[in-house]
Amino acid sequence: MRLAELCERSGVSIATIKYYLREGLLPPGRRVSATQAEYDEEHLRRLRLVRALVQVGRVPVATAREVLAAVDDDSMDQLSRLGTAVAALPGAARVTEGDQATTEAAEHTAEELQTLLGWRVVPENPAHVSLVSSLAALLRLGYPCEVSQLLPYGRLAAELAAHEVALVEEFEAPTTQLEAAVALTVLYEPVLLSLRRLAQAEEASRRFDTGPA
Amino acid sequence: MRLAELCERSGVSIATIKYYLREGLLPPGRRVSATQAEYDEEHLRRLRLVRALVQVGRVPVATAREVLAAVDDDSMDQLSRLGTAVAALPGAARVTEGDQATTEAAEHTAEELQTLLGWRVVPENPAHVSLVSSLAALLRLGYPCEVSQLLPYGRLAAELAAHEVALVEEFEAPTTQLEAAVALTVLYEPVLLSLRRLAQAEEASRRFDTGPA
Repeated sequence: MRLAELCERSGVSIATIKYYLREGLLPPGRRVSATQAEYDEEHLRRLRLVRALVQVGRVPVATAREVLAAVDDDSMDQLSRLGTAVAALPGAARVTEGDQATTEAAEHTAEELQTLLGWRVVPENPAHVSLVSSLAALLRLGYPCEVSQLLPYGRLAAELAAHEVALVEEFEAPTTQLEAAVALTVLYEPVLLSLRRLAQAEEASRRFDTGPA
Repeated sequence: MRLAELCERSGVSIATIKYYLREGLLPPGRRVSATQAEYDEEHLRRLRLVRALVQVGRVPVATAREVLAAVDDDSMDQLSRLGTAVAALPGAARVTEGDQATTEAAEHTAEELQTLLGWRVVPENPAHVSLVSSLAALLRLGYPCEVSQLLPYGRLAAELAAHEVALVEEFEAPTTQLEAAVALTVLYEPVLLSLRRLAQAEEASRRFDTGPA
C-alpha cells in the first residue's frame, strides 16, 4: 500500500508516519519510484504498536526505539526479547527517594511476597525495583504494607498474567506475539486501573450506602 | 508537637510543611506563642496523605486541595465524600482523541462489561470516562477488546475492591477511613502495576522457556 493508505488504515497522519520513519520507529517502505514507497501489513502492525507506546504509554521516542530493537533482535530467544522489551518500558513507580532502612524493609517484603507466590526473585527486573520503591512509599507514610495485605494483589496479578499470556499466544508469528505482548502491557494498564476504581466505587456503595435506594 | 517534631516524625522537611500550610493542604497548628504553633496526630496523618497525593500520585496542589476538601466536607455523607474525593484524583487514561464511532463502540463495550459484572453504570464517573477512553485506544489500534477478554480484568478488580474496602474499614474514625481510602487508591496503583509485570514475566518464563533450567 502507499503512504496515503497506510495513513487511512492506521488513523495516523502522514506527517506523524514520516516522523516515525525518520526516527527509525518504522522500517522504510520498499521504494517503487523516486518519490514513492510501498508499505505492507507489517508496517501497519508496527505503526499500531508505535502508536500504543508513544501515544497511550507516553513512552519517549528513544525508549520506544529501544523496545522495538528488543522485539526485533533475532540474536535472542523469544523470552529474552520479551523480557528486554518490557524491561525497557517506563515503570509504574514514581518515587525513588527514601532512607536506607525503609528501602531494606521494602526489599525484604517484596522478596517474601514473591517467594510466597512461588515467583523467582529477580532483583534487577525493573518491575522488582518499581515494586520495592512503591512499598517503601507505603512504609514511609505509615500505610498498611504487610505481606498478608499484599498477597491478594499478587494472586490476582498471577491470574491476570495467565489470562494475558494466553491472549498473546493467540497471535501466530513469534514477532507478532512479542508486539502484542508489549502493546497489551501498555494498553491494559489504564483499563485495569479504571476498572479498579469502578469496582471500588461499586463495593463502597454496597457497604456504606445507608440512604434510601 | 512542635514543627520540628512533625518534620522528624513525618520525614517531610520543614520548608515543605510550611509550603503545605501556606497552600492550605494542612490545617494551621494551634498557636502557642507569637512564633510557635502546636501540631497533633491529625496533622501528622494529614501530612502523610498530602505526601501520598503530591509525591507518589503526582497530584497537582490545586487538585490535592479539592480532594481534601471532599474528605472534610461534613455536609455530605461518607459515601459521597469518598466518591467526590476519588473522582477528583487524576484518572488512569492518558488519551482523549478518537473518532466518534470508536468512542461509541468503546462506550457500548464498557456498559456491557459493567452490566455483566453486576455494577451500576455511572457515565459521569471519571473512572468510567477513563475506561471508555482506554477501550477506544485498544479498538482504534486493532488490539483485542472483546467483553469476554475484559471480563477477567473486571472480576479481579471486584475481588481486589472487596479486599481494599475491608482494609479501609479497619481504620476507626470516618475521616480516617476516607483519608486511608484516598491514600491507598493512589499508593497501591504502582504496587498493582509492578506486580502485574512481575507476574507476566513469571508466567511467560513458565510458558516460553524452552532452554536448559
